[in-house]
Amino acid sequence: VNVYEGVMQTLIDELGRLPGVGPKSAQRIAFYLLKVDALDAKRLARAIEDAKDRVTWCRRCFNISEGELCAFCLDQRRDDHVVCVVEEPRDIVAVERTGEYRGRYHVLGGTLSALDGVGPEELNIAGLVRRVAQGGIREVIVATNATVDGQTTAHYITDLLHGANVQVTRLAHGVPVGGELDYLDEGTLAAAIRQRTPF
Amino acid sequence: VNVYEGVMQTLIDELGRLPGVGPKSAQRIAFYLLKVDALDAKRLARAIEDAKDRVTWCRRCFNISEGELCAFCLDQRRDDHVVCVVEEPRDIVAVERTGEYRGRYHVLGGTLSALDGVGPEELNIAGLVRRVAQGGIREVIVATNATVDGQTTAHYITDLLHGANVQVTRLAHGVPVGGELDYLDEGTLAAAIRQRTPF
Repeated sequence: VNVYEGVMQTLIDELGRLPGVGPKSAQRIAFYLLKVDALDAKRLARAIEDAKDRVTWCRRCFNISEGELCAFCLDQRRDDHVVCVVEEPRDIVAVERTGEYRGRYHVLGGTLSALDGVGPEELNIAGLVRRVAQGGIREVIVATNATVDGQTTAHYITDLLHGANVQVTRLAHGVPVGGELDYLDEGTLAAAIRQRTPF
Repeated sequence: VNVYEGVMQTLIDELGRLPGVGPKSAQRIAFYLLKVDALDAKRLARAIEDAKDRVTWCRRCFNISEGELCAFCLDQRRDDHVVCVVEEPRDIVAVERTGEYRGRYHVLGGTLSALDGVGPEELNIAGLVRRVAQGGIREVIVATNATVDGQTTAHYITDLLHGANVQVTRLAHGVPVGGELDYLDEGTLAAAIRQRTPF
């Protein structure tokens, strides 16, 4: 049933298209927006328009960017010899949060997926190969997710860079910090044993 | 850590203010908006602005409305003798969905709440009393939620309308359709027994 009047129903419909927002949440958000100060609601509208107008993809690494090159590609203090390959821009946030990495990035824009029909052409893989071919990169850290698709993509990239004069590495598997062995899946624990390090 | 660039971070912040949208969902929605067609994203921005510009509260019943009076107050075919009192406009949707009701509505805009410091003046109660005093209304169905605050509000309104020439009724408590007795709280089941009806 559609008992809201025009504009309100349109707002609920549009909100309902957002990922993770069901019809109930869409309605809740719409009423919230109706109740808050007009300036607050319009700041959200403005933010959406600004993002669409001004945010684009970095020409080099395909991270989000407001210019031709993103902040990480422009930052003079970062190490040009290492490139960390991630699936999505949000993975850069995760890596940055560790404070462990000061190299460059490359964003694939997803993973290979037979199921969803995503092939290498749909991802920013050619750009990575080009960057490596240009020289100067000593190590490529393939930091795709530890999912089936992520690992398939990692293998594909590793194969592709085989022969290029670059070391390809990947993240270690192991026991999460604070994790209890008892609750850990056997695959992770097996990997942690195999990749054990001296004290 | 704040590693997104300006406009993108602003969008994530603004989305994160919405009810039920945590930082992770805000990020997910922001990237979704970045990826979809510019027209789709701007339709959402437009919908927010339109709603803020054009949706207001019905002068009579305080439902949302694009004009002075809402669709339910304007509808000539509805029964003027009955008014259903609800907490929020979304409750009208719930009642309409039943197809059981063809009278008018009155939206309180919340419930009395000692905890949140909501008194009768904060709700659209004076307007209800005025409507009843104008005459022509035979029955007021108090359809507030079956929560403590909802029921407190229902009692307050019932007391207030005592003496006015109007019958005040409330929704029946009972077993939900399809519900199993075994899983029902004893309060609801007790009410269902007390309010049992002949076959």
